[in-house]
Amino acid sequence: MARWEPGAYDRLREAALTLFDEQGFEQTTVAQIAERAGLNRRTFFHHFADKREVVFAGQEASEELIAAEIAAQPEALDPLHAAVAGLQRVAETTYERYRAGSVLLGRVIAASPELQERELVKRAGLAGRIAGALGERGTDERAAAVAGWTAAAVFFVARNRWNQPGNERTLAELMGETLQTFLDATLHRAGVPLRSVSEA
Amino acid sequence: MARWEPGAYDRLREAALTLFDEQGFEQTTVAQIAERAGLNRRTFFHHFADKREVVFAGQEASEELIAAEIAAQPEALDPLHAAVAGLQRVAETTYERYRAGSVLLGRVIAASPELQERELVKRAGLAGRIAGALGERGTDERAAAVAGWTAAAVFFVARNRWNQPGNERTLAELMGETLQTFLDATLHRAGVPLRSVSEA
Repeated sequence: MARWEPGAYDRLREAALTLFDEQGFEQTTVAQIAERAGLNRRTFFHHFADKREVVFAGQEASEELIAAEIAAQPEALDPLHAAVAGLQRVAETTYERYRAGSVLLGRVIAASPELQERELVKRAGLAGRIAGALGERGTDERAAAVAGWTAAAVFFVARNRWNQPGNERTLAELMGETLQTFLDATLHRAGVPLRSVSEA
Repeated sequence: MARWEPGAYDRLREAALTLFDEQGFEQTTVAQIAERAGLNRRTFFHHFADKREVVFAGQEASEELIAAEIAAQPEALDPLHAAVAGLQRVAETTYERYRAGSVLLGRVIAASPELQERELVKRAGLAGRIAGALGERGTDERAAAVAGWTAAAVFFVARNRWNQPGNERTLAELMGETLQTFLDATLHRAGVPLRSVSEA
């Protein structure tokens, strides 16, 4: 069987996610995935390092897109808004078309402790990538690190709502609303001074 | 040998961290740790589930302290400042005494990919715990989730600086400064409106 079978990547990914969803990630073997896709194990390993990588495929490409969109935001935008605007832009141009796949992925990850742990590692990767893109815009390194985590949290909280059954709003809208809810609760209460350590 | 050897926990922890630092986490066995502590393997497994847990021992107790300190913050304080103030309080009452241990732990974790991955999982646990404590104060769930990650990021960025050679500032001071740097860069640029999705 040809290793360069057209569409093999997509067929393997669809077969893998369907099997993970039907019978569980831990219970699914690479041989089963290849069989369901009508391909062989060698073709699988040509496209993916292991079955876990099927779940997180495309993350590197997504992060590159996000970093590029953050770099493209107006200079006047503060780091947190630039980061969230970059994420919103990728949501609009890319993620929005794949909601059904995101719902399925969310279900597969939620059912597997191993994948949940891996997901947390990937989140740290995204936060770090956002921080790096903000650093390139000239943001102080510490502020960029914190803003990277804040923006990543906005993204993950919004994506969770976006994946809910019955949701009809876009991921970008939900991100904007999540950020605003955070800002309203936290930072628009001007007049409450930062607790100084010397007062403790 | 008695399983209830006095001081066994501390002796095992010190022996383990010293060995991890000297010869690497992956290369160190439980038998070596027990031998260095003058105890046996059974005593080790009475105190720790595995050698990885030695590194993250005490996290649950720390998180409980942090949640309690967040709950004790004045009601008027917004969620982000309440979370950071709670973390600062635990830094003052507890962490500040253990800087040498924190430096050692940081070095051990930085040298091991497995421990780095585990550290990211533990960070998510802390962010979730902070979010839970904020939720109990009445903060909106989404805002609490984002504030939990932001406060956790402030803590980890500050702890990294605190661990640097030659640092003479307290962890609580460095947290206050990190939060202020983030706020100055990000949120005190009033007048830059939130990019609305409808303008995209």
